[in-house]
Amino acid sequence: MKLVCIGSGNVATHMAQAFRSAGHEILQVWSRDMDHANVLAQKIGAVAIADLEAVDVYADLYLISVKDDAISDIAAKLKDVKGLVVHTSGSTDISVLNACSRYGVLYPLQTFSIAKALDFSQVPLCVEAVNTFELKCLKDLARELSTNVYESNSEQRRSLHLAAVFASNFSNHLYHLSNLILNEQGLDFDMLKPLIMETAAKVQQEIPLSVQTGPAVRQDEQTIQRHMAMLQSKPQLSEIYKILSDSIKKTHS
Amino acid sequence: MKLVCIGSGNVATHMAQAFRSAGHEILQVWSRDMDHANVLAQKIGAVAIADLEAVDVYADLYLISVKDDAISDIAAKLKDVKGLVVHTSGSTDISVLNACSRYGVLYPLQTFSIAKALDFSQVPLCVEAVNTFELKCLKDLARELSTNVYESNSEQRRSLHLAAVFASNFSNHLYHLSNLILNEQGLDFDMLKPLIMETAAKVQQEIPLSVQTGPAVRQDEQTIQRHMAMLQSKPQLSEIYKILSDSIKKTHS
Repeated sequence: MKLVCIGSGNVATHMAQAFRSAGHEILQVWSRDMDHANVLAQKIGAVAIADLEAVDVYADLYLISVKDDAISDIAAKLKDVKGLVVHTSGSTDISVLNACSRYGVLYPLQTFSIAKALDFSQVPLCVEAVNTFELKCLKDLARELSTNVYESNSEQRRSLHLAAVFASNFSNHLYHLSNLILNEQGLDFDMLKPLIMETAAKVQQEIPLSVQTGPAVRQDEQTIQRHMAMLQSKPQLSEIYKILSDSIKKTHS
Repeated sequence: MKLVCIGSGNVATHMAQAFRSAGHEILQVWSRDMDHANVLAQKIGAVAIADLEAVDVYADLYLISVKDDAISDIAAKLKDVKGLVVHTSGSTDISVLNACSRYGVLYPLQTFSIAKALDFSQVPLCVEAVNTFELKCLKDLARELSTNVYESNSEQRRSLHLAAVFASNFSNHLYHLSNLILNEQGLDFDMLKPLIMETAAKVQQEIPLSVQTGPAVRQDEQTIQRHMAMLQSKPQLSEIYKILSDSIKKTHS
């Protein structure tokens, strides 16, 4: 298959590389920023284009991985292409693409950084289409990239995206806050790394509810009060500490 | 070496097994709950005792892994033993043991579940003692169990424990909240597992600050507002969403 990549960020880069590894050809890369388009185009043997007017209308797949609020404008400019137009956004409805004749969604439920390689075959891919033919086509394609392919509608995908914010974005921020606490004592973040890995590894086997540990689930008020006292001069951290501890207590009471 | 285990919970079980694997002998296990003491004693080939009066005073090491507020009472009862008395608590000062003649701290910075095995050789062990001799003795011992041995005083250990609450206990609770969001849409928690692993794996290589992703760090107000609307009927989740998003925005502004 021949693809056109619209976007050149973290998601676009990992998706394009996965398609390429599966034997597909990337014809063109478009990005708002031509320098970024060039970087990705070089990586995957494609041509960078500065203008969406220059898009090859005879590609099989148009992969839109741009900021959510830019998708509809781009879809409008792709309304005359012959191939399947697909966006990769978790929180954007499939209907944003309905200016196009054939369209769908291919949402990778993963956190990507350009600098970090990862095993794409394990990335959960959520597909959606408006008719059976396109759905089958997208599913077959997704299965070439990953063993974890799911069908989910726009409402479910929005919930997946929201759940991902809690499980990933917010957890990463908590890692950052814990790093701040350590820095203040001259302690190295390395010390926390095995704990962070094990906490994630545990819920691969058990549901999180059943492996909750710590002072809040033990209703250990003495330790909670000591921690709150340690955070007295840090309103941002102490507020987060209190609300998450209360939420744990409520969940387990 | 000959050990006595005081406590039979998650930490006591994993520590006792690690000592046993390193070739040491566990003589006795005491627990408030005799049934629990029996379970651990059987696992590690020790004798369960119901009364601390029955403790063998000639063991080399007394390992206290009980609730924080029970440590001082137990230490008082061990004041006549000849060996080294050690507690394993993150948030308890070493001075709680000063009724004993020789004492120290051996704090494993990890989350343990009795049901889940883990590679103890990677567990960070933080040691503290009041003199050079006991410190060397504890360090040598810790190095038999793990390759990650650190020296840290009581103040640093308290910060490590607080940081661990953010990085592990609170993250696990966020995993639980994300599971709630998925359940409501009939979606399987399995879908989030690769994301959770990758989020933890990322910070093994990079500092969390530099790999933050999601709507809050992009200042993507449209998505944040949509998420808040989805959580309207869930005050507990929407409060957590708002506070963590605000904290991310503040951190990255």
